[in-house]
Amino acid sequence: MTTFAISTVVHWLNITVLWNMSGGVRGKTKTTLNPEDARQFKTNLVESEPAEVARVLRAHRNTADNTLPFLFVALVFVMAGPSALEAYIFLYGFMAARVLYSVCYLKGVQPWRTIFYGISVLLAAGTAIDALRLVLSK
Amino acid sequence: MTTFAISTVVHWLNITVLWNMSGGVRGKTKTTLNPEDARQFKTNLVESEPAEVARVLRAHRNTADNTLPFLFVALVFVMAGPSALEAYIFLYGFMAARVLYSVCYLKGVQPWRTIFYGISVLLAAGTAIDALRLVLSK
Amino acid sequence: MTTFAISTVVHWLNITVLWNMSGGVRGKTKTTLNPEDARQFKTNLVESEPAEVARVLRAHRNTADNTLPFLFVALVFVMAGPSALEAYIFLYGFMAARVLYSVCYLKGVQPWRTIFYGISVLLAAGTAIDALRLVLSK
Repeated sequence: MTTFAISTVVHWLNITVLWNMSGGVRGKTKTTLNPEDARQFKTNLVESEPAEVARVLRAHRNTADNTLPFLFVALVFVMAGPSALEAYIFLYGFMAARVLYSVCYLKGVQPWRTIFYGISVLLAAGTAIDALRLVLSK
Repeated sequence: MTTFAISTVVHWLNITVLWNMSGGVRGKTKTTLNPEDARQFKTNLVESEPAEVARVLRAHRNTADNTLPFLFVALVFVMAGPSALEAYIFLYGFMAARVLYSVCYLKGVQPWRTIFYGISVLLAAGTAIDALRLVLSK
Repeated sequence: MTTFAISTVVHWLNITVLWNMSGGVRGKTKTTLNPEDARQFKTNLVESEPAEVARVLRAHRNTADNTLPFLFVALVFVMAGPSALEAYIFLYGFMAARVLYSVCYLKGVQPWRTIFYGISVLLAAGTAIDALRLVLSK
């Protein structure tokens, strides 16, 4: 459960930093999609996000959309009582892959971004299969 | 709890398959939004997703945005100790509606997509009300 | 746990109302992104969402992307056994900030939208730090 707690907080940080970074990068471009923000913060009203903001948002989108469903699977997994080693490999492995993915996306480093993404999907699939095995063998 | 475990893994699969399908369909159109991918994979850099990729992403978006909040409600619900029958109806019912929704969206089958969406929202609302009833009656 | 149950249901409602409101507002503009919907509901096929639909979707996006990671942190937090007062402050505080944020975004009220967003991020960070403290002190 400590493994789940620590990795959950790191994922929360990963997602929250990416989200607020998109706001920070948007601020530097001095653009906004909301008329009330243009008035309040004296920025320019635009119809679509500038390229650098869109990149951070895509990194965030991929991160949230893969991390959140995984955390439900991970919760079922830790509730089913895995060994500490299994929990370390799946939860910390996935966590490391996702943090490295974020870094690679923001820096535009390929093929590493795709490699870390692939590792995260394989570890999530492994967690799901192991969770089902533990739940059904009870 | 087994009901929660099984439906969670199916939802994870539903979301993950849709997400990776968006990548697969994008691959077939040989387009990308990232300059580094255009270099790495010899695809064409575009500014917005082709229509067939956008369709898969909309199906994924609706699925993730309705499934993930539901799973928190479902977690509260199973922790509050419902009868096995209640759990089957709400959790497997929602699961079936969401999987059929994905199929209907990808195939463009209306009005079935909207019907399965409506069923999933009603079942989620039922789960939320029943969860509150169980928690507050303790 | 009752605090977690009640705030989870309110968050589910907040996210679900925003999502379905985006559909309702889209319906009033008589537009759709799907050819099969244009045929079924006699609406006009467009390539991007009208401005009023996009506003509701941005409010929904921010709400879901901040609420869902928070709920995992909140789950770890309540499992670690906080005092009732801590739970009230963090969980109901975050809940109130997010509901007021939704209202401010839909009405276009600045700088209140940004203020409630800031409060929600600070409370989420507080919950994460307190959860780690409780888990690691066991």
